[in-house]
Amino acid sequence: MAAPRIRLLIGETVALGPGKAALLRAIEEAGSISGAARAMSMSYRRAWDLVDRMNADFTGPLVERVKGGRGGGGARLTELGKDALGRYERIEDKASHAVAQDLEEFAPLLRDPD
Amino acid sequence: MAAPRIRLLIGETVALGPGKAALLRAIEEAGSISGAARAMSMSYRRAWDLVDRMNADFTGPLVERVKGGRGGGGARLTELGKDALGRYERIEDKASHAVAQDLEEFAPLLRDPD
Repeated sequence: MAAPRIRLLIGETVALGPGKAALLRAIEEAGSISGAARAMSMSYRRAWDLVDRMNADFTGPLVERVKGGRGGGGARLTELGKDALGRYERIEDKASHAVAQDLEEFAPLLRDPD
Repeated sequence: MAAPRIRLLIGETVALGPGKAALLRAIEEAGSISGAARAMSMSYRRAWDLVDRMNADFTGPLVERVKGGRGGGGARLTELGKDALGRYERIEDKASHAVAQDLEEFAPLLRDPD
């Protein structure tokens, strides 16, 4: 059986976790919140809600609107957004590597998903 | 600001995470699922649902009923349950230590909760 992955939540109230990190990556890629929501099969309203919460939980916004361009406007990560996402990904990587062996030993305790 | 904590989810469908681990610890302490639910301010129904899911996701039950005793019966962790919880706690510790410095550097990006 493949070893299970760990996923990280940062902070008691989950300032950043796998779902929010994936949304930030999708915004970076799509260039808009609506495009990111579509790519993640998430409602536009939910995507905005998550962005709002991240923008409020950090010292500044992680996502900003961009005027002009395709469809008359989009969104992109701020420098703080790129920094937070990059740090999150490095923390997740480092933690995963640190426990890779333990996760392999944990795997036989789990039923094979089918 | 104190460094934020990480919390771990194991597996894509979250076989074990902070909520389930806390419930297992509470069952160990209370000696029953109803006592554990009460201690966690969780409904009895939700506690049972989480136990059912864990018992199904692992190769055997993590929690078993105990006949007799106070109130005519309770619950306790099986050997597998103790093993899974112990491993989860060690994995969480190890991962936290591996990224302690990074979390300290992440903290200034977050607003102080108030």
